Amino acid sequence: MAGAAAMGGAAWAGHEPRRPTPDRPPPSSDLVSYEETVLAFRNHGFHLEMLDQEITPLGSHYQLIHFDIPQLSPAGYAITIGGRVKKPLRLTLEDLKRRPVVKEPAILECAGVGRSYSHPRAIYVPWFNEPIGVFEYTGTPLRPILEEAGLLDDAEEVVFTGHDSGIDLGGHVSSGVDAGAKHFFERALPIDEAMKDGVILAWDANGQPLLPAHGFPLRLVVPTWYGMASVKWLRKLTVINHTFQGVEQKLVYRLQTSSSDSGRPVQQKWVRAAMKPPGFPDAISRMRFLKATEPIRLVGKAWSGFGAITKVEVSTDDRRTWQPARLGTPLGPYTWVSWEFDWDPRPHKGKEVILSCRATDDKGHRQPLKPWWNVQGMAQQGVERIPVRVF
Amino acid sequence: MAGAAAMGGAAWAGHEPRRPTPDRPPPSSDLVSYEETVLAFRNHGFHLEMLDQEITPLGSHYQLIHFDIPQLSPAGYAITIGGRVKKPLRLTLEDLKRRPVVKEPAILECAGVGRSYSHPRAIYVPWFNEPIGVFEYTGTPLRPILEEAGLLDDAEEVVFTGHDSGIDLGGHVSSGVDAGAKHFFERALPIDEAMKDGVILAWDANGQPLLPAHGFPLRLVVPTWYGMASVKWLRKLTVINHTFQGVEQKLVYRLQTSSSDSGRPVQQKWVRAAMKPPGFPDAISRMRFLKATEPIRLVGKAWSGFGAITKVEVSTDDRRTWQPARLGTPLGPYTWVSWEFDWDPRPHKGKEVILSCRATDDKGHRQPLKPWWNVQGMAQQGVERIPVRVF
Repeated sequence: MAGAAAMGGAAWAGHEPRRPTPDRPPPSSDLVSYEETVLAFRNHGFHLEMLDQEITPLGSHYQLIHFDIPQLSPAGYAITIGGRVKKPLRLTLEDLKRRPVVKEPAILECAGVGRSYSHPRAIYVPWFNEPIGVFEYTGTPLRPILEEAGLLDDAEEVVFTGHDSGIDLGGHVSSGVDAGAKHFFERALPIDEAMKDGVILAWDANGQPLLPAHGFPLRLVVPTWYGMASVKWLRKLTVINHTFQGVEQKLVYRLQTSSSDSGRPVQQKWVRAAMKPPGFPDAISRMRFLKATEPIRLVGKAWSGFGAITKVEVSTDDRRTWQPARLGTPLGPYTWVSWEFDWDPRPHKGKEVILSCRATDDKGHRQPLKPWWNVQGMAQQGVERIPVRVF
Repeated sequence: MAGAAAMGGAAWAGHEPRRPTPDRPPPSSDLVSYEETVLAFRNHGFHLEMLDQEITPLGSHYQLIHFDIPQLSPAGYAITIGGRVKKPLRLTLEDLKRRPVVKEPAILECAGVGRSYSHPRAIYVPWFNEPIGVFEYTGTPLRPILEEAGLLDDAEEVVFTGHDSGIDLGGHVSSGVDAGAKHFFERALPIDEAMKDGVILAWDANGQPLLPAHGFPLRLVVPTWYGMASVKWLRKLTVINHTFQGVEQKLVYRLQTSSSDSGRPVQQKWVRAAMKPPGFPDAISRMRFLKATEPIRLVGKAWSGFGAITKVEVSTDDRRTWQPARLGTPLGPYTWVSWEFDWDPRPHKGKEVILSCRATDDKGHRQPLKPWWNVQGMAQQGVERIPVRVF
């Protein structure tokens, strides 16, 4: 087509997949089954054009719904805190709202981020770079609730149970856990993690009650861990004196180097940076086109579950050379930080440029150029390649 | 796994896609490219478990975002009404809100519904049954605005232009329209359609301002047509005296029987019914499991852009026999109608049952058992097959 040629790019090539991976173009076998495609529609992705905003609008934040969305009424709703505690508690939504209230912008990111950049790819929600988002949550800190219940001396973990239930026939390792039995979604935190600042029970996001798909009427928010820890539609908290053996912890959401490795559970978010795609898109391929008329500002966000971001670097030559971006001031300790980088696309007129960004945190973690492969395709944080056709 | 066997189903088979189509199981070639998978994450699907609710909660309604979401401020926002009119108008959001206000539950459905049930499948957003949803919109009727502007005698169509722009390199027919040139999203309505009751300019959905992904601050709602007509992020209305030749009308969103057929634009929603998936899901395959302890009530919705629903039938034997469902009373003339059907799964214990529903409207349109194929995979309305494993 004339328009495509005028922009310096080949016309869209039809059926060939060509989505870039962090480290190389995808092989022609990069195809997704219909089952996984259904999961991509159910589990909404973040809209990357919102990467210039500190708070993600409702309707543009990612969602991961493991089973079905439970339909819960706030009337009569309550959670229980039991197990290895001195004084079991039952708290209604009104009880919780009478406790100390905090407002907290928090970044959530699905543990399955970047799964489709892995080769071979694990079969589950076939995420690329879009399972992210920041809402400002309103809730109450968890620690005082656990203190009021009184942890017994042998308390090791807190199990958070949601109202959502189903089965996991695709369980990745069959190590004695019956994933085919109907179960509630459950994840545990070690006591020291559950007691940390920032861990809250939240009822509002962006100033209004949680949407049903985001955990109405109450969810846990663990801002430094991947999203599976922030259990939605909370039903009960159970303090246990051993390591939790539930399906979503023992089988799913684990980092395994091989299928014979039982692995370790996914926990903190690894350091990562993301860029607002510059220019304008082609509707189907989402390829970006940029008119080279003047210098532009590249912007994006960076975050880490291990600490503060100390550096973001930008490459405009497919990761050969790097230059520092300017960092902004985050809205709080549990959210992402903005970065910006001024770039002149005019010398690249008529070419396809590969843009990348790369974050480092204050623990010295830095995004790898080649992502670390693992069996379930969890926690991929390799530096992204964003092709832009300059015309 | 023991659990799966106990439920009477084979264990999940790993990489094999097996999503059912309306008329038959998919062939092994039913795979989706990475590019299309990215579109499935961006373009959110309706959560089918919400099919028992009249109004879809925010965060669970489908979205189709052709280019990027424009970021618009309500301050200073205005639309213009021009072209073949006697008195061109400029209306701010405040001007519009001072006009007569209507509240209107309306069903929207993407024209690409069922595209992945087609063989061969067109390349664009690879929808199955999930691009639907009903919000209650608040807005003002369009007709009085057009009457105030005063249509000239040669007025034929009204073109609605959004603020969203980009290119369409995947344009399906290259018939002289340059889809590769940057353009705004635009669709037109014939004057008689634009003047119909129910066509409104809406600023609220479910009692709050439109979310950015749903057209903030103002969108058109054409409740009887497929979703592409309900232009989001409205920029201007232009009355023309000919047939609109824009990319989204002349090339995209057309019903074509072959690639040499220029086709006709997609318009009214064809009659369709949908069922809330019964039982509980397997997390990855979304296969449904149902414990056969007592009779259950199957529920769902039905709608047509041509008229009222007069009949919904249910089949529990893979479309061999049909029985009538009971119809509810819709909330208004532009939304879906509820249906329910009592069914005893106990005789089917240990078997996989295929459930279906089939709607008829008052114009005599009835869902076909085999869908009508077309080049772009538009407006698929074939009767669905919903496999349920009874245990």
